[in-house]
Amino acid sequence: MTHDTETFAQFADRHIGLDDITTARVTEQIGFSDLDSFTDAVVPTRIRGDEGLDLPPAASEAEALAELRTIAGRNTVNTSFIGQGYYGTYTPAVIRRNVFENPAWYTAYTPYQPEISQGRLEALLNFQTAVADLSGLDIANASMLDEATAAAEAMTLLRRANRKAPADSVFVVDSDIFASTLAVIRTRAEALGIGLAVEDLSAGTIAHENYFGVLLQYPAASGTVTDPTPVIESAHEHGAGVAVAADLLALTLLTSPGEMGADVCIGNSQRFGVPMGYGGPHAGYMAVREGLQRSLPGRLVGVSEDNVGRPAYRLALQTREQHIRREKATSNICTAQVLLAVMAGLYAAYHGPAGLRRIAGLVHARAVRLAAGIAELGLTVTTPRFFDTIQLSAPGKATELADAAHDAGCLVFRADDDTVRVSTDETTSGADIDRLLGAFATVTKGKAHAADAGNDLEPDFDFGGLSRTSEYLSHPVFHVHRSETQMLRYLRTLADKDYALDRGMIPLGSCTMKLNAAAEMEPVSWPEFANLHPLAPAADTAGMVALIEQLEGWLAEITGYDTVTVQPNAGSQGELAGLLAIRAYHESRGDTDRTVCLIPASAHGTNAASAVMAGLKVSVVATDEFGNVDMDDLKSKIDEHHDRLAAIMITYPSTHGVFEETISDICDQVHGAGGQVYLDGANLNALMGLAKPGRFGGDVSHLNLHKTFCIPHGGGGPGVGPIGVREHLAPFLPGAGTVGPVSGARYGSASILPISWAYIRMMGPDGLKRSSQSAIAAANYVAGRLGSHYPLLYTGSDGHVAHECILDLRQITKETGITVDDVAKRLIDYGFHAPTMSFPVAGTLMVEPTESEDLGELDRFVDAMISIRAEISDVAKGAWRADDNPLTNAPHTAEAAIGQWTHPYERTLGVFPAGVNPSTKYWAPVGRIDGAYGDRNLVCSCPPVEDLAEV
Amino acid sequence: MTHDTETFAQFADRHIGLDDITTARVTEQIGFSDLDSFTDAVVPTRIRGDEGLDLPPAASEAEALAELRTIAGRNTVNTSFIGQGYYGTYTPAVIRRNVFENPAWYTAYTPYQPEISQGRLEALLNFQTAVADLSGLDIANASMLDEATAAAEAMTLLRRANRKAPADSVFVVDSDIFASTLAVIRTRAEALGIGLAVEDLSAGTIAHENYFGVLLQYPAASGTVTDPTPVIESAHEHGAGVAVAADLLALTLLTSPGEMGADVCIGNSQRFGVPMGYGGPHAGYMAVREGLQRSLPGRLVGVSEDNVGRPAYRLALQTREQHIRREKATSNICTAQVLLAVMAGLYAAYHGPAGLRRIAGLVHARAVRLAAGIAELGLTVTTPRFFDTIQLSAPGKATELADAAHDAGCLVFRADDDTVRVSTDETTSGADIDRLLGAFATVTKGKAHAADAGNDLEPDFDFGGLSRTSEYLSHPVFHVHRSETQMLRYLRTLADKDYALDRGMIPLGSCTMKLNAAAEMEPVSWPEFANLHPLAPAADTAGMVALIEQLEGWLAEITGYDTVTVQPNAGSQGELAGLLAIRAYHESRGDTDRTVCLIPASAHGTNAASAVMAGLKVSVVATDEFGNVDMDDLKSKIDEHHDRLAAIMITYPSTHGVFEETISDICDQVHGAGGQVYLDGANLNALMGLAKPGRFGGDVSHLNLHKTFCIPHGGGGPGVGPIGVREHLAPFLPGAGTVGPVSGARYGSASILPISWAYIRMMGPDGLKRSSQSAIAAANYVAGRLGSHYPLLYTGSDGHVAHECILDLRQITKETGITVDDVAKRLIDYGFHAPTMSFPVAGTLMVEPTESEDLGELDRFVDAMISIRAEISDVAKGAWRADDNPLTNAPHTAEAAIGQWTHPYERTLGVFPAGVNPSTKYWAPVGRIDGAYGDRNLVCSCPPVEDLAEV
Repeated sequence: MTHDTETFAQFADRHIGLDDITTARVTEQIGFSDLDSFTDAVVPTRIRGDEGLDLPPAASEAEALAELRTIAGRNTVNTSFIGQGYYGTYTPAVIRRNVFENPAWYTAYTPYQPEISQGRLEALLNFQTAVADLSGLDIANASMLDEATAAAEAMTLLRRANRKAPADSVFVVDSDIFASTLAVIRTRAEALGIGLAVEDLSAGTIAHENYFGVLLQYPAASGTVTDPTPVIESAHEHGAGVAVAADLLALTLLTSPGEMGADVCIGNSQRFGVPMGYGGPHAGYMAVREGLQRSLPGRLVGVSEDNVGRPAYRLALQTREQHIRREKATSNICTAQVLLAVMAGLYAAYHGPAGLRRIAGLVHARAVRLAAGIAELGLTVTTPRFFDTIQLSAPGKATELADAAHDAGCLVFRADDDTVRVSTDETTSGADIDRLLGAFATVTKGKAHAADAGNDLEPDFDFGGLSRTSEYLSHPVFHVHRSETQMLRYLRTLADKDYALDRGMIPLGSCTMKLNAAAEMEPVSWPEFANLHPLAPAADTAGMVALIEQLEGWLAEITGYDTVTVQPNAGSQGELAGLLAIRAYHESRGDTDRTVCLIPASAHGTNAASAVMAGLKVSVVATDEFGNVDMDDLKSKIDEHHDRLAAIMITYPSTHGVFEETISDICDQVHGAGGQVYLDGANLNALMGLAKPGRFGGDVSHLNLHKTFCIPHGGGGPGVGPIGVREHLAPFLPGAGTVGPVSGARYGSASILPISWAYIRMMGPDGLKRSSQSAIAAANYVAGRLGSHYPLLYTGSDGHVAHECILDLRQITKETGITVDDVAKRLIDYGFHAPTMSFPVAGTLMVEPTESEDLGELDRFVDAMISIRAEISDVAKGAWRADDNPLTNAPHTAEAAIGQWTHPYERTLGVFPAGVNPSTKYWAPVGRIDGAYGDRNLVCSCPPVEDLAEV
Repeated sequence: MTHDTETFAQFADRHIGLDDITTARVTEQIGFSDLDSFTDAVVPTRIRGDEGLDLPPAASEAEALAELRTIAGRNTVNTSFIGQGYYGTYTPAVIRRNVFENPAWYTAYTPYQPEISQGRLEALLNFQTAVADLSGLDIANASMLDEATAAAEAMTLLRRANRKAPADSVFVVDSDIFASTLAVIRTRAEALGIGLAVEDLSAGTIAHENYFGVLLQYPAASGTVTDPTPVIESAHEHGAGVAVAADLLALTLLTSPGEMGADVCIGNSQRFGVPMGYGGPHAGYMAVREGLQRSLPGRLVGVSEDNVGRPAYRLALQTREQHIRREKATSNICTAQVLLAVMAGLYAAYHGPAGLRRIAGLVHARAVRLAAGIAELGLTVTTPRFFDTIQLSAPGKATELADAAHDAGCLVFRADDDTVRVSTDETTSGADIDRLLGAFATVTKGKAHAADAGNDLEPDFDFGGLSRTSEYLSHPVFHVHRSETQMLRYLRTLADKDYALDRGMIPLGSCTMKLNAAAEMEPVSWPEFANLHPLAPAADTAGMVALIEQLEGWLAEITGYDTVTVQPNAGSQGELAGLLAIRAYHESRGDTDRTVCLIPASAHGTNAASAVMAGLKVSVVATDEFGNVDMDDLKSKIDEHHDRLAAIMITYPSTHGVFEETISDICDQVHGAGGQVYLDGANLNALMGLAKPGRFGGDVSHLNLHKTFCIPHGGGGPGVGPIGVREHLAPFLPGAGTVGPVSGARYGSASILPISWAYIRMMGPDGLKRSSQSAIAAANYVAGRLGSHYPLLYTGSDGHVAHECILDLRQITKETGITVDDVAKRLIDYGFHAPTMSFPVAGTLMVEPTESEDLGELDRFVDAMISIRAEISDVAKGAWRADDNPLTNAPHTAEAAIGQWTHPYERTLGVFPAGVNPSTKYWAPVGRIDGAYGDRNLVCSCPPVEDLAEV
């Protein structure tokens, strides 16, 4: 049907904010006649490729959706009894519609500006509270990427927490753990040189004698529920810490790891209302006991207070984060799984403790019934105590049983030739069980009984004394949103507190906050994509796999690489995977000494952290006064490390927002010294259709699908970080050979890949190119208009920037005391999200408008910034006191503006500055938040309700 | 799977706001131990039925959705070339997701409180402007129910506008008109005693000599485009008015009816982005020339100004509406099709004039290509000039052609044995055309050519000189929302101006604003329900028809009637259909004199209007001081009319919100006199599972699915108004025999029926009963708490109300000058939508909390009303001036609260009265609106942009 598309309005015209007329105005302002001549001038000739993009021509929205329907139709959603970390669950429709499918939630950014993120911060606090309560530990973070990476992070956390342990001490992992978890731990441990000891801990004893930490699973992968207390006590006596991988739903019935002394608890919250999605995205979780909170990786939401002492949420302990630690980091997590953690937390709030317990009881009752039926068939159940998973022994018949189940529309887990596991979940019906037993009966030749047992909600046995007696989820938030109307209004109230792309521009440099089109998002909700188990057989997933392979091929074409894998479920994991590939490549050639990774001073914080995690040593290359790599320093670093040079890790266009002319030289020099070039693809949005990293010098890049390829930021995740490699690195992709997987699921966050697929399919080669051209043009338009008001920190040699620009406020701050923080908060009063603050240079603001903003919005932003500059001048002139002016008092809440007013400027100037329409104004729900106060008084669970009575 | 449901959380617990604990508190406050004893006491024993509801037990959300998926799977969405008023269209995904699937839009009420409805009023003004521009007429209303009823309304409008025409003058209808339109006109004309003359007007002459008005279709039903000017001129010379049924998309290419002198233009806006939905709902439209606006039926949005002179929207000329006209009314329209009109207007705004013209050009080009292909097959095309529809002559082969097309997955319109019509639309692809031609070729034995003509966007011929040259959609709103980001933000901005159920309670008496659950709403978007053509063959619609028949059966069970039809697409149409059945029944028995309809003084305004439209004479029965029917007056009226008594039309529970004890007597007396009992089902929400109108005396009732059965109000439509009848009336249902159809589509607004289906399926018999019990209990709780602050106007003999209560402010107004309007507007400051104002008694407020509100929200409302009562007392005490106090100044906008403040009370009291949380407050975007100003200065299209610069 592609011959029809030309006659429809192009999707690119909907995605790109500048139309023909405004593009002409923008390019004219920049000093060019059109986009092509402009990009010819600004993108270095040496990296340009004129071969274009060999992609299908653009499809219309309707055509792309029709194709996706066809692809979805090739998937078969059978009834999953597979388990192993992924379970059927019912997403309450009110949450699906009003969170998962609501741009107010999914187009929000990471809550670094807490005053305009109170809604999702509260939702995350619900999640943290639920996790902490259920795990019985003190503090939970705001999500991990998945269970497997959370387990790996637990290992390194316990390593950090146990500095006294000998250098060669190992990490002991119980053998009855999910294979996916063990595989990722192995990848990480190998990279860091941590020894692993996998042993059977079911007897409660630890055989290894030199270990710093232990991980066990509860209930175990086989389904068995064993009391972990003996192992925990042994480990503690030994001075080692213990992490427990636990199922949150099981913990509503089982004594919690925290109560039994565990130090860390990790797992997956998927079954709290988040579809399986062929493996992701879901919110992994981690909770720790008091004392370990400063070692906790990822983000932590806490309670602080605002400028008038109202309780207010914000990210706590940010100093722990990777952007501070850099080369000393031991975690590179940046993106989390906010949208999914929000959903899981809301699922807990909607059901409450009684509802969760009821669901868990049902799941368990179903498992009991299934176990009874299996036993009646003459099969041997080898899990004496279980929650939802039964292991059965059927020597030599596992495949036959699995096949029979599949023929009956049921999926089971074939652990080995002799062993099958079956798991029940919230969606398992009695009919499903009868169907599965019927299928098994065809193999055993026994007769399946349609048992009518198993409807008991409260199983009458006590899990071997492990039945939970402690309370959980006693906070009112888990009790007051029980009707759908109550939940609906709660969701609306939370969403209304926040600022997302559906309100206005989010000009965050490096983060590429552009349109997440509804047509791209819709398929994610379709059952054929949402409800696939990641271990479903190939026959069931033909459509999904075809889509993924097509997407990987398209991404390879756009980046110029030979192979792409979508497995990494965040940019950070992509970085790790790319560096592991480089390291393995060197090792495969006997270059075992090549362990030094050059990283320019301007790099993303994650780069250094990832290098450390890949077992590389970081060597920082200086940048010159123009923000570019200092070629002399590069040369000296190359000479210095010589045969130890593994790679350079460099972002292009640079994190300074310019097209460095020297990129080809840099690549050549590193290659010349035997090193590999890792081109960070964070800024690929400036290159599509213009230049291909794989062609102009890169050996490997990771991409951020949640930046360039339209996966929404979700308020701080999900992200997807595929990597592309040149042919010689392909054997070292995660899971391909010597390097293990970096994510729990083979295709990472598979269920959201249709978003990027649809974007590329609807933009076509011309649309993608115009997208990048427009993004660059918009940035230069903003830079051009703002340059006379705020110094531009860096530009290319021709005076232009790439797709973002850095406004240097350092001198202004020095002269007036007004900081980037003040400007950022004042922008809220003007109805904007702030640009990126103090990255890559402290005291600056980095602005990236993206191609999706129209000229009106660009001008509205520029005008606001100019107006703010005038306000700064007024402060400088002494019109207002340095500590009492519209900037330092920003953001102004409605309550502040309407109550007692003592400021030396008018109320209207405070809240309705130039350009703000009073009738459509976005109001920040709280004033400026005191982050330090919250860190000093750390509260990371839902605060007592009386504290929030006035919020 | 029903045996599983008991183990899941019941949907009823999500739908009903009162849980076990709060129900106990509520019943205790009312003075009862539990719901059952309470309802036993309050619902008259004589009408109670103890047989319960024979409905399937409640399904969980997931089960109901799974069943609906199965039902949907039994539909087949073939490619429609049927046309005849319904066309394939692409709903832009951004509009589908952010309007059609967004509770902020669909749970809103009719914009009678304009200050909190500015968003949808603006969207409706877009619709009106688009219709007026495209039709070339001066004023368009905010939608009609469908094209067929709009045509019938045009007939009565022209009759009203032409009082000089002889009483026996007829309405001339061109014979080349949609069959569905003609059928509904015929139904209406017969009821009103208007003569019809159907004749072929294609030659431009009118044969009939005594007529008051003319209707023709442009392009005609056959597809032919004929210049209507000669007919218009002839009619005008004759002193008659002319209405043109026109296709809005065609009007982007064809000279408009207005330019050619038409007085009225009507039609359907479905193809502007609203799915066909098996026939509805869609927004019909009507536009009229200057001079006819006061005769325009339905709602009209206009521009007025607020208390500080800001332009502000509101419903204009409300005095025209049925609730004023009552027994003199000639239209009974109450509900419109707001949600669909909003979508159509936004579709126009998103595409703009160039985009619409482009789409129309494509549609036409496809039709040209199709016509060429048909001619090549040797079939005779009988439409020399056409836009999108081609009629072909194939003597004796029409059925064979239609069958061949169906076999190829294509649907065509078989006009008669020898004639087939095919229509192209926005979704028609070249491949679709090739497929259809291929199918035809199997019949003609000719060879289909894959013509590659037809991609021209600008057809090079001029429709016989009718090519449009005038401009349209030149207002900026049709030009500035071209990117998806712009549209997304526009939609958010509009939605944020409005108050809907997702923000808080809308306690509108008689309107039953309760939960519209997400699980009920989701299936409406599924392609299998959304994309069926109403004339699709039975083989394609098996699922839909089964669902409809099941729903009709369930509604019959709930109401106690023998037969239910869902055809009426609004309550008003249900009333008409019910009264027509009564009239036809009497006529069938030779009782042709039975034309008097008794209506109590307290009745809904629509009742009287419907009676007039059904050709009945209204006789008003007095009500006594308790609001009940005056039994003496009833008796005297029955005696007076005697053999002329056709029916009584009475609402139960009464519009006064009480269970009248005398209802059984009333029914008996009317029946005894040979009359029929029409029980208005507007208040059925108080009866489910407690009493059945069809059992306690009703012969016919209409239901409002958008009240009791959870179809959302959509900001003023869609509504659905099925009727149930006892067996003796079944032969007189619309379309069943002697009475013609009342809606254009056989099943009316079919696509939203899954909502009510899901509600009943998920509530089950017990849930429905508890729903009614809880609604009554909630109303009595509110009445009990408020009774000491505001006099309750009516209660039953036991002191209780039914599901709503009336607060009588007349004495308060007399003493203090504070009106119900002031209280209603002040409630906005407190974060509420007002109760129903001045219905059924002027100077009162009628409160209906419904079963979906939780106790916290009930108390919040009661507390606000008590606080407002205290404010009124302060006015009475002289604390504030009668014309400058928080009530008369309400609602307070942010701009007013923050600007110059001269009022004798604090700003904070104005905007943050007791109970209002400043950080989550809903702000009215404009102050009190002066409706009269707008009526004096009528502007009903988008105002010049400069007028709105400050809004």
